[in-house]
Amino acid sequence: MNDDRMWFDAAVAKLADPQNQRVWSIVVSLFGDLAQDRTARVSGGALGRIIEPMGIKPEAIRVALHRLRKDGWIDSTRIGRVSEHFLTEYGRTRSAQVTPRIYARTPVPVSRWHILIAEDGNGTCTLEKAVQDGDYTMLSRNAALGPGAPQEHADDLLALEVSPQNAPAWLRERLCPPEMRTACASLIGALQQVSDTWPKGWVPTPAQTATLRTLIIHRWRRVALRNPDIPASFFPSDWEEPACRDAVFRVLDTLPRPSLKDINGQG
Amino acid sequence: MNDDRMWFDAAVAKLADPQNQRVWSIVVSLFGDLAQDRTARVSGGALGRIIEPMGIKPEAIRVALHRLRKDGWIDSTRIGRVSEHFLTEYGRTRSAQVTPRIYARTPVPVSRWHILIAEDGNGTCTLEKAVQDGDYTMLSRNAALGPGAPQEHADDLLALEVSPQNAPAWLRERLCPPEMRTACASLIGALQQVSDTWPKGWVPTPAQTATLRTLIIHRWRRVALRNPDIPASFFPSDWEEPACRDAVFRVLDTLPRPSLKDINGQG
Repeated sequence: MNDDRMWFDAAVAKLADPQNQRVWSIVVSLFGDLAQDRTARVSGGALGRIIEPMGIKPEAIRVALHRLRKDGWIDSTRIGRVSEHFLTEYGRTRSAQVTPRIYARTPVPVSRWHILIAEDGNGTCTLEKAVQDGDYTMLSRNAALGPGAPQEHADDLLALEVSPQNAPAWLRERLCPPEMRTACASLIGALQQVSDTWPKGWVPTPAQTATLRTLIIHRWRRVALRNPDIPASFFPSDWEEPACRDAVFRVLDTLPRPSLKDINGQG
Repeated sequence: MNDDRMWFDAAVAKLADPQNQRVWSIVVSLFGDLAQDRTARVSGGALGRIIEPMGIKPEAIRVALHRLRKDGWIDSTRIGRVSEHFLTEYGRTRSAQVTPRIYARTPVPVSRWHILIAEDGNGTCTLEKAVQDGDYTMLSRNAALGPGAPQEHADDLLALEVSPQNAPAWLRERLCPPEMRTACASLIGALQQVSDTWPKGWVPTPAQTATLRTLIIHRWRRVALRNPDIPASFFPSDWEEPACRDAVFRVLDTLPRPSLKDINGQG
């Protein structure tokens, strides 16, 4: 094992999400990054070449694929001895829904906001329904904040366009909890270490590139999707999500998305 | 007893508040309407001439004055056999606080609004304190609406400037309850009947004018002060408070405020 290979293994360990190494979720991140196209196919061999270096056994990948097929995310075909996996229409739609939030380098600032207020007591059901269907952030048990102008909602919610200025401490704490800060800081640290130690002149194989990209996207996805959709002025001044986003794309830019053909055929 | 006197008694009966004939409260309405000036004095005789025609006994007036003196609203002096009553500094301040809401013919529309949202649980105390101190209307257990731009508030309230458009049914019901509708409609009806039957050419005495004005202001005061301070668009389309206000001032305009000198000296 040469130095580059040792570095690669160390980078993989560093980039692995300390919170979530669920294989089906890693497969979802992988397809979202490399195989969102309607015609994209990932061979069983390619999946192994990308995922096994993360210390995940072939059996665990088979179990994850089984689960994803059952849930309607992924479908598989077999041509001779070669199995091929691809996103279903449903999986592609779900993947496409979150792609903008994960891959936006500079999220477009929201210029209008509104809140929904529910009646005390039984009104909270209607509010929960609205929150589930839309991009809302709960402010309290019966108030939620959402982007855009107030829409036509269930009659029994009070909708008010608002001009947010700043948020009290309890709300910042709730919206930007310590776990998120830790997740941001540790991902920034991991990416920094990978960048700083990158072996001079080393070029990863297409599968290695896919492994590193998948790990980064998988870990970043949880930060990006949990980053609350709230006015910029509501974030604490030391909020690291924007710095984390920058760090993610700085490293991804050195790992251009490989072609599936190269990974499928490799090995 | 001539026809005019019979009409006057009928008008007094018609204008009497069906909900609240508490004498101390009538005395407060009377002083607010006729004797808010720092130098204004109402003789015991004048009080009787204004209030007794409402069917209130002299003893009840004495009890009310006693209570108002004890509460610091009113003070009294006696010069020979003549007692004189007047608002204390405190009574005048309290009276002046509500005067704009009672006597404004066309309330100035509020152009900016904000809401305060409290943290679930212990935050409601801070909200209740803010609501007590200011012109707020509770929207739900932990949200209140107030006029103007968001002020500097206790750090633990979320303050958001809002552009109110319309309100759901439950909120209209809460803010504009049936009792208020009934109070408006019945006062409009009483005023209409008084106007329609007003004896041709009849001119009330200063004390009779004061009796009628006091009754109207006393009953209107309760409507005006309970009318919620909310955006125009939040009222039901058939909300009668503006019509009631118009009716009140239409009749008051035919009953110009008499001079206290005339009533004090009369008899």
